Amino acid sequence: MSFDLRAWSAERLERIEQALSVWVPADTPAQLGEAMRYAVLDGGKRLRPLLVLAAAEAVDGHAEAALRAGCAVELIHAYSLVHDDMPCMDNDVLRRGKPTVHVAFGEATALLAGDALQALAFELLAPAGAGIPDRTQAALCRLLAQAAGHAGMAGGQAIDLAAVGKSLTEAELRHMHRLKTGALLQASVMMGAACGEPSARAREGLETYGRALGLAFQVVDDILDVTADSATLGKTAGKDAAQDKPTYVSLLGLERARSYACELLEQARGALGTTGLADTRALLALAEMVVHRDN
Amino acid sequence: MSFDLRAWSAERLERIEQALSVWVPADTPAQLGEAMRYAVLDGGKRLRPLLVLAAAEAVDGHAEAALRAGCAVELIHAYSLVHDDMPCMDNDVLRRGKPTVHVAFGEATALLAGDALQALAFELLAPAGAGIPDRTQAALCRLLAQAAGHAGMAGGQAIDLAAVGKSLTEAELRHMHRLKTGALLQASVMMGAACGEPSARAREGLETYGRALGLAFQVVDDILDVTADSATLGKTAGKDAAQDKPTYVSLLGLERARSYACELLEQARGALGTTGLADTRALLALAEMVVHRDN
Repeated sequence: MSFDLRAWSAERLERIEQALSVWVPADTPAQLGEAMRYAVLDGGKRLRPLLVLAAAEAVDGHAEAALRAGCAVELIHAYSLVHDDMPCMDNDVLRRGKPTVHVAFGEATALLAGDALQALAFELLAPAGAGIPDRTQAALCRLLAQAAGHAGMAGGQAIDLAAVGKSLTEAELRHMHRLKTGALLQASVMMGAACGEPSARAREGLETYGRALGLAFQVVDDILDVTADSATLGKTAGKDAAQDKPTYVSLLGLERARSYACELLEQARGALGTTGLADTRALLALAEMVVHRDN
Repeated sequence: MSFDLRAWSAERLERIEQALSVWVPADTPAQLGEAMRYAVLDGGKRLRPLLVLAAAEAVDGHAEAALRAGCAVELIHAYSLVHDDMPCMDNDVLRRGKPTVHVAFGEATALLAGDALQALAFELLAPAGAGIPDRTQAALCRLLAQAAGHAGMAGGQAIDLAAVGKSLTEAELRHMHRLKTGALLQASVMMGAACGEPSARAREGLETYGRALGLAFQVVDDILDVTADSATLGKTAGKDAAQDKPTYVSLLGLERARSYACELLEQARGALGTTGLADTRALLALAEMVVHRDN
């Protein structure tokens, strides 16, 4: 039976956009709220929230918890882009086809907006009176904090920073990406799972799926940095090569990078098969999309 | 019966420093961990963790939860200082008598270290297998996220940013400080309270105490910015006046600012009296210290 990812996503994306629009506040002091909304709304493929919802549906998880978790992960992703684009980091002026936040609002407001988005992510996960079990709230905070921090995304960015102009081995490159982008993608899957009560076997399968998907995402990102143009990407293409950053393409070559991405997709597919979950079609379709996307 | 704050604090400070030294990681990628530890260890009066522990003891709260909560609040405070000192914000080079983090490690690492410290704060609050009730973990995450974000500290910083060179009314100034520094100080008290099961009356009294203490802290900060020298403060004195920032001293004058601080101390004392808690001496002594400190 074929699965229509477009139809599945459309309904979820509407809920995600609606929720983000409500939860990212407009009525904040100075330009802070404006900058936060600018960074989050009307942009992005929402891959991470879709992964959260797909995993939560696969384990029959708490729907409100999953929606909050999806938005929270997206806020962490959005804040990391705001800070990453700043002059002291990548100094990028274009993001999703728009001026970056510090270009539009100034550096100080961009810094604060990023900080406030990170706090808001955790605020969404621990609401009072939303009927989400305390155990779920605590588990979601734990997973997100670990994935965002020094042993996850922020740690990966630090390695990335230190790696400019250096040659890394494939193992080092993989470690960097596992932290920098992989941790948050894998956490998206595991946060979805934490909205329900999956068996140990299902949890392990989802963990393997999330790890393969996270790595595949980065391999494809590196491929697109070389093969796509800025207009298609919605961000500056060719940036990694220009900055002499090690990538899967510089390390493996284009063809081997492509076959590595396909291999990771097969790993992800295989892992879903071990979960014993009744319906993992959305998760599989998302992994296929990650590998076959053109932006 | 007299209360020996020095002796009380000494024992708690030892636990706090020890815990921070263990929980702020050294073994992280690149210089990230080093910068995080530089920002947090061997510095600061640890007022916020002491408030957490004092409130937790007053309500007979969970000791491990309180220690984690105290460290988490301190990490949020520390990250805010790192980001605040950066060139795009206050551009300060001296903090606690040492070069600021971006001077010592570079701007990019300072930005990431601040981000990672915020994530670590939430990680500390939601540990797996530490025997802290899920309900407590969720409540602590909620209180900290609210106090750190757009409706708390980050929001206050945004107002502060927008206020340079403008004249504020006393109400506007109070609102700015209630968010910028007051929210996190009040949250310290309420997080301590959340480690136990205080009555509604106790909770309300502690909330009022925390609000008065938070405001008093800022009034005294403004006074010290005018009356103390940089060596005593461990940071650049006279900064607010130099930047033409509105302060309680510029608004009320020095004498009225001093009497306002004393008035707030009396409010804090009165609020503790309404809690019905058996022993609030440490909380009272901390409020007295906040008002009578010289740095």
